Formats: sequence, structure tokens, C-alpha cells
Amino acid sequence: MKINIGAKPLLGPTPVLVVGSYDKDDKPNLATVAWGGLCSSAPPCVAISLRKATKSFKSILEREAFTVSMATMATMIHADYAGLMPGATVDKFKKLKLTHMKSEFVDAPYADEFPVVLECELVGHIEMGSHTQFIGQIMNVKAEESVTRSFMVEGEKHTILETMKIDPLVFDSAGYKYHRITPSVGQAFSVGKKAMFW
Amino acid sequence: MKINIGAKPLLGPTPVLVVGSYDKDDKPNLATVAWGGLCSSAPPCVAISLRKATKSFKSILEREAFTVSMATMATMIHADYAGLMPGATVDKFKKLKLTHMKSEFVDAPYADEFPVVLECELVGHIEMGSHTQFIGQIMNVKAEESVTRSFMVEGEKHTILETMKIDPLVFDSAGYKYHRITPSVGQAFSVGKKAMFW
Repeated sequence: MKINIGAKPLLGPTPVLVVGSYDKDDKPNLATVAWGGLCSSAPPCVAISLRKATKSFKSILEREAFTVSMATMATMIHADYAGLMPGATVDKFKKLKLTHMKSEFVDAPYADEFPVVLECELVGHIEMGSHTQFIGQIMNVKAEESVTRSFMVEGEKHTILETMKIDPLVFDSAGYKYHRITPSVGQAFSVGKKAMFW
Repeated sequence: MKINIGAKPLLGPTPVLVVGSYDKDDKPNLATVAWGGLCSSAPPCVAISLRKATKSFKSILEREAFTVSMATMATMIHADYAGLMPGATVDKFKKLKLTHMKSEFVDAPYADEFPVVLECELVGHIEMGSHTQFIGQIMNVKAEESVTRSFMVEGEKHTILETMKIDPLVFDSAGYKYHRITPSVGQAFSVGKKAMFW
């Protein structure tokens, strides 16, 4: 039997996203957000939500660019710290001993320790109450070669991410907890075909 | 060493969301989307992205409401089928033998077999290329009592979701695969405090 538990932001599990941006003085900052994800395929776009009070909010509007890195098991403490602490008063790259890199595609920084980085140009933002959603067009995805796999199709090289090697975290907004993911339990756009014979 | 793998929609793992809507003739439909997630806390809002060609796209604009259910291990085939097949030609509730329920909070249907349902009013939509993002304000979250836990704080009853009992799926856009989540590996807004002593 279903019960009503009210108007709450409960929708797990979400990716844990570490957002990189420069302020007007070229100082790099990182902020971890739980409200975000892909929002379009072509052009590929990602949405992240930030509170107005954050340093990242201002920086992204000023520089019109940001990066999004996936938080991983190996970077859980870094990512959680970057979500806890305010960029206005803490140099998170320095405190977390992270390697500052400048994207060659967009005007934004990232930390080299995160294995996958989306380099995004700001294409829009929408205010929605506590949060403002920023839409970034993904200009390039950068990944450690060790978490990718390449293969040839008709003479053309394709490179894909190996998600289990990335070991990404997901966030559960119901319990405020991080989880890892299991090996695959099913192929999307495929397992559902069984129901055609139901 | 990082390599560039191009402008691609790669950001795993995302929640697997089953969207319910009525068409103008009150016929219920389900569509599974991988691009979506929470986007604001207060008021609580959820974003889902749909292609214009889908039946759900038209229905949600007409009825200005939708539901979002979390796909789970137990409903993986149902959810994948609902993402594969077009609502214009298939009655997915009937084909999947799902129980049609009408939300008492918003003008939209859901399938009772999904343990958690967000009941949303459409508050905006943004076109972004292949997809249009719909923003829904969560008016209520409905959940099977068996996946919730209640406790009293200062004489007031609180009810929360037990995510591991829900057994939600996540989608990996790199490998087009579904995964489950492991038990928690860390408390958010807490594990990062360790870095204060680094």
C-alpha cells in the first residue's frame, strides 16, 4: 500500500558532480552538486543546479563556462569536502592537494585527479527557487586513458568510457548517502524486448 | 594521462525515470527517460527531457502534469520496454499488465507496481535541441509503505525512503547498461570533514 510522504526532493540515485569554474581573478574553484545530469543528446548538454549564495554561481555567470567531473570512490572525500566548504573562503584545490588544470576547450578549470571531465560552455540558466539551473553544452569529454576502451568500426576509431573502471559514486537524497554501482544487470534498449512476448 | 573523446553525452550513472501522463482523451501512457533528475530543493522540482516526437511530449504540454517513478530491479523489463516502444501505437499499461492509478494530487497517471512515485505539476519547459526539458514541481511523493521508515522527532512523525529496499536502477550512458547500487559507502556532508585535517 502506498503512503503520501509530502512534497520533497526525493529521487535517488543521482550522479555526484564536481563543478569547476574560474572567478574574475582566474582563481579556480570546485563545488560539488547533487542536482544535475544530462539533459539533451544533440547538442550534448548537462544541467547543474546551484544556490545563488555560492561562489560558483557568480563565477559561471561571469566566465560563461564550467567543467563537470564525476566523483568516484577514490575521490569521495575530496568531492564531499568540495560540497561542504564555501569557495569564497577556502582554496579547495590547495586544501585538497588537487592538481589544477585549465581546459583547452572552455574557460574553466578542473582537477586532474578526477578521471572524467566534461568541458562545458554555458548556454542558459533558469531560476527555480532555492536553486538556479545552469545548462552547459558539452564541448568535449576528457578521460583518463585507463578508464576508456577503444575499438575500430569500419576503419574508424571509437573510444568509450568503461564505467566500472571509473567507479563513480551516486548520491541518495533520501538517506544523504553515497553508494557505488554494481556490475551491469541489464542492457538498456534491449532487456525490455522480452515484454513483447508477454 | 587524459585523452579527448569528443562532444558526447557521457555522464553516468543517471536515475532511470518512468514518466506517466494522460493524453487529451484520458488515455494513460508511460515513457522511460534517462535524462532527468532533481533540479531544485525548495520548491522541490524535477527535470525530465523528452524528444518532441514522443506522445508524452504532447500529453504533458496538454495536461500540464506528469508523474515520475523510479525504475527498480523488479521493474527493469517494464521500464526498458516503456522506453523502447512508442506510446502513440502501444498501450503500455495493458501490454505490461501494469495497474493504472490516477494521482490525487496532479492530473497524471502512474503504475502501482513502481514503489516510489513523484507527482508533479508542469512549471516550465526549455527547448535545447534534440530534447526539451520539462520542469515539474513535486507536489507529493508517494511510496510503498514497505520501502519507507518512520520515526518520531519531538513528537512529530517523519517518514523517509529506504533506498536499498527500493533497489533502484541507474543508467550508464557510456555502455547503455543498467546497474544496481551497492550499500552505502559514505555519509554525504560528513565524510569530507576528514579533509579538514589534511
